[in-house]
Order: sequence, then C-alpha cells, then structure tokens
Amino acid sequence: MKICIVGSSGHYVYALRGIKEDPDAKIVGISPGCEGENIEKLFSQVNEMGFAPEVYSNPIRMFEELKPDIAVINTFFYKNSKLAIEAMKRGIHVYVEKPVALSIEELEELKSVWKQTKVKLSSMLGLRYTPHFWTAYKLIKENKIGEIRLLHAQKSYKLGNRPDFYKQRRTYGGTIPWVGIHAIDWIYWLSGKKFKLVFARHSRLYNNDHGELETTAFCSFLMEDEILATVNIDYLRPATAPTHDDDRVRIVGTKGILEVLNGKVYLLNDTTKEVTEVSLEKPPIVFLDFLNEVRGTEKCLVSSEDSFYVTLASLLARQSADEGKVIEF
Amino acid sequence: MKICIVGSSGHYVYALRGIKEDPDAKIVGISPGCEGENIEKLFSQVNEMGFAPEVYSNPIRMFEELKPDIAVINTFFYKNSKLAIEAMKRGIHVYVEKPVALSIEELEELKSVWKQTKVKLSSMLGLRYTPHFWTAYKLIKENKIGEIRLLHAQKSYKLGNRPDFYKQRRTYGGTIPWVGIHAIDWIYWLSGKKFKLVFARHSRLYNNDHGELETTAFCSFLMEDEILATVNIDYLRPATAPTHDDDRVRIVGTKGILEVLNGKVYLLNDTTKEVTEVSLEKPPIVFLDFLNEVRGTEKCLVSSEDSFYVTLASLLARQSADEGKVIEF
Repeated sequence: MKICIVGSSGHYVYALRGIKEDPDAKIVGISPGCEGENIEKLFSQVNEMGFAPEVYSNPIRMFEELKPDIAVINTFFYKNSKLAIEAMKRGIHVYVEKPVALSIEELEELKSVWKQTKVKLSSMLGLRYTPHFWTAYKLIKENKIGEIRLLHAQKSYKLGNRPDFYKQRRTYGGTIPWVGIHAIDWIYWLSGKKFKLVFARHSRLYNNDHGELETTAFCSFLMEDEILATVNIDYLRPATAPTHDDDRVRIVGTKGILEVLNGKVYLLNDTTKEVTEVSLEKPPIVFLDFLNEVRGTEKCLVSSEDSFYVTLASLLARQSADEGKVIEF
Repeated sequence: MKICIVGSSGHYVYALRGIKEDPDAKIVGISPGCEGENIEKLFSQVNEMGFAPEVYSNPIRMFEELKPDIAVINTFFYKNSKLAIEAMKRGIHVYVEKPVALSIEELEELKSVWKQTKVKLSSMLGLRYTPHFWTAYKLIKENKIGEIRLLHAQKSYKLGNRPDFYKQRRTYGGTIPWVGIHAIDWIYWLSGKKFKLVFARHSRLYNNDHGELETTAFCSFLMEDEILATVNIDYLRPATAPTHDDDRVRIVGTKGILEVLNGKVYLLNDTTKEVTEVSLEKPPIVFLDFLNEVRGTEKCLVSSEDSFYVTLASLLARQSADEGKVIEF
C-alpha cells in the first residue's frame, strides 16, 4: 500500500498513526501542496518512522510518477479540494483534510469526480476516533439515553499566532467550517439524523490581527424528528490553559443524558441515578480503517458520504452566518 | 409593610424568604388567584412563620379590603399579569411571577399601567440571588474575563406530573417563557447587553401527555457588539436525578472563561492558568431588597425594566420558535 502525503498544514498525523499500525503501508513520497508550505517537520516525522520518501515540490508530478494507492492531502485549506480531485482523476484514493471543500460549488465538483472515479475518500474528522467520543457513540447505540432530543456541542481553541492563510476567508474558509465542523459532525454522527435547517452567526471582533478569521460563532440546527441542536465555537481559550482545546458535547435523550467533557464521558439515567463517569472504550485506529477500506476488508468510520454531508452542513452554517438568515438543507 | 399573597403556583417562597429577614413585614392576607387553585400549603407555611393572614377567595376584594403595600402574585400563569394590573391600579406595589405576561399585548398593557401608576414592580427572577449566579456576576463586574463575546446557558428540569394548566399554551405560556426565561435573564444580566435578534425552536414530542407543553427548546441570540448567545432548555432530566434542575451558564470573554455548574463557579484566565473553583460570595436576600425599594432605601436587583425586557425577550423567542423565523428586537 503506497502512500503519498501532500502538505503538512492539517492533521496528517492521523495518517501517520494508522500507518504505524499497518506493516504493509509505506510512505513513498511527500510534497508541499502550495508554494511556501514548509514540510520539514513532516519530512522528519516520516523519516523517524523509518521511511525514506521521495520529496517533490509538485504534488501532481508526485502522483503521476509514484502512482500511490492513497494520497493524504492537508495543505493550505483552499487547495485541499482541488488536489483531492487531481488525485482521484488519477485513480488514487484520498484521505483529505476537513472541510473537504471551501464552497458548495467545489464540494459539488468533488462529489461528482468521486462518483465518476469510484475511488475511496475519507476525511480528517479524527475526533470520532478518540476514546471519549467513541464511547459516547457506543453508549447511544446501546440505547442508554433513549431517543435523542437535544444536543449542544462546544469547540474552544487557543488562537495563538496562525499562519497567514488563516487570515483570509478565501484561503481559510472560515471558523465554522474549520473548527465548528467537528461539533457539527458529533451532532450528526451521534444522533444519526439529518439536518433540516440552520441559523448561525459569527464575529471577527477581538481576533488579535487575524484579518477575516472569525473569533466566535454559534450554529443552531433543526434536525429530523424535531431534534434540536446548538454549537458554540470560540478561539478565546486563554493562552495559559492546560490544553489547546476544550471539546464538549451534551446529549439529552428521552431516557438519559450523556456528556463528553475533559476527555471523559458522563452518563445520567434512571439506572445510574447520579452523573456517573463511564469507562472508556477502545476506539478503532484512525486511518487504519481507511487503509482496510481501500483493501476491501473493512468500512471506514468516516465515510465519503459523511465527509461530504458534514462539509455541506458547515458551509450552509457559514452561509447562514454571512447572510444573517435561516438556511434550509 | 402589609403584604398579601395571591396564589401558590409559582415562587412565593422567594417572598417568604425576604419577609423572614424583615421585622416590619407582615403577611396580612392570602387568596387563590384562580378558581380551583389550592393554597393550603401556602396557608400552612405562612402560619408557621407566625402570621395569621385573612384568607380570601377573591384577590381583588382582598386588595380593596386589606389595602396592602405589596401584592405577591403567583397564580396560574395566565392570570398573573391581569392581577398585577388590578393591584397596581389600586396603588399596590407588585412582586409578580416571571414571565410577567404571556403575550406582547399583555406585556404592553402591564407596562403602560405601571408607568401611569408609578408603583414598584419586580419579578421572581430569583436565581440571580443564588450564591453561584451572584458570584459570576461579581466576577464579571471585577473584569476577570474581559469583554464578553459568547454565552451558553442551560435549563434542564424534571418533568414529573404537572398541573393541568401547564398543558395548554393559553394558560401555561410555553416552556421558553416559563423555564427558558431564567437562562435568557442570565445572558442579559451577566452580559449587560441588549438583544438584537433571536432564532428559536421548540418541540412538544415526548412530553409524557402534557398536551401543548414543549419538552425541548433552543434559543440563539445576536446581541449588541456582536455578542453571541445560545440557550438549551429541556424537561428530560431523569426522575431519579439527585436534583430537580441542572442550571448552567458558560461565559467566554476576551481575557477568560467563567462557568456556573452544579451550584459552583469556575474561572479560567491567564491568572488562574487552570480551571479554578471560586469561593462563593454572599448574595443579597431575595425580596428583602424589593421591600427596601418600596421603602425607598435600596434598589431591587431585579428592576421593573429588567422584568419587562426579559419577559419580552422570552416572548419573542417563543414567537420565533412558533413561526420558524428570525425575529428582530
């Protein structure tokens, strides 16, 4: 299984994590995805794993010369979709950064090429593979909280100093698609329901000279079966906080309430009586299941359809926030 | 200071709490506010406090015969506003259940009578007087989190079996005005900012035969200065949970993050470095400050204007949820 990695501006470490667990996976080439993208850290990490990849300056030439089975694509965000399309057109399976596109038009083109080429595609919605979110998912499947009725998800990040491409909407895509998409994914994945409409807002105030980057946002969703969901997103986590992020979700069902908080899972229902910390389940290994899907032996936890749908939801939420109006799906 | 209490379907215990601390306050009369309202428990509580109030069946007659200084009004929700108007027209100050009206028209009438009669009015937004919310308020005033940018508030209640008047919108008013109003109040009071627009939804599904009562809801607000806020409301707290409610608020500022959770207050900023539990401050005593406002010696924490404004916000949120559209303030 030959793998090429394009860029290092996103979550390529997910791919490394899966590759480490797969004796037949081999990183054969790496390349920046954009002019000015520094891939030195990627190179040294791949080297430490014992691979000696060829280093290209042009990812398309890399695809054509090395003919990999899989391209891992995580460059400056505005190029991910275009490069995924170039890879798919050459019959290469793609593991691409989320959101998989920065506009509805790009998303439609990506889907259309995916349908024509019939390659496999997954995206870096890697938080599904954390023990806490995976355990929450299992508990819901085991019907511990009954029918889901209300969800609230939170993403809170330190801002720090971000690369220049974060400072323009055209190259960054927006905070709802970049950060909020995880929270939107939890809501969709954990509830198993589709979105009906969204109302969202965002604000660029107090973004510490990050140009067009939005510092805060909310999304509110009506879902199938009158399920209600809200999301809070911010880049205002204090610089001195012990962790980079503060990911949370609270899920209210007809029989109980489930929460993910501080990497732990808490359950309250008529059986537990009090809020009870639940032992974490071992999740699947990120990217390893995609390698196996390419082999045809397993289904990847993050399907192509989910990758497209969650990207769509984040782009419609961004549109709602930009236009100040409710958007129907 | 002569006080009459009308009804016992709301939070008259707030009034009892203040009266206990005030040697000059005296409960002189009690009455149901509606036909069929049982006030036996109120009677015995007032008795235990050492008062021997006259018991009326008609609150208007009680107002006219006993001429109290203050009427405490908390009957079936649809009658609170009407009875407050009757009291005010007789020059009686009113301490009334929230929401202070169940429709915009009623609210306008109440405000208009209040302006004409110049009596004092406050409402049972009593959670402001809890040590945890009061401490959060003080910390914000002390600038511990900088400029507020994003808020999320939660109300989660056990449903149990509610009286029949909860089962009709006409008599109950809706879950956003009845339960959500507290969360809306925290957002308004803690941020000190006005609302610009609201988008809300609610659902009656799984309300356990409670007719028109909404089981779940969210509200999302754009406020002044692009401050964003969301609210989650539910009646799905498991019956066996250790407490009736699970009140929360999380406030994200430019310099820190503050949370109220489980009756405690947590602060994270560049000084605390980690999420730190804050010692609780002693709040003012609920209703006692209203007694003093009537005397002219103090300002009540819940002003007339706040009571009207927070009721308006909850009614516009309900309208948004009913009509499925964004409502501007």
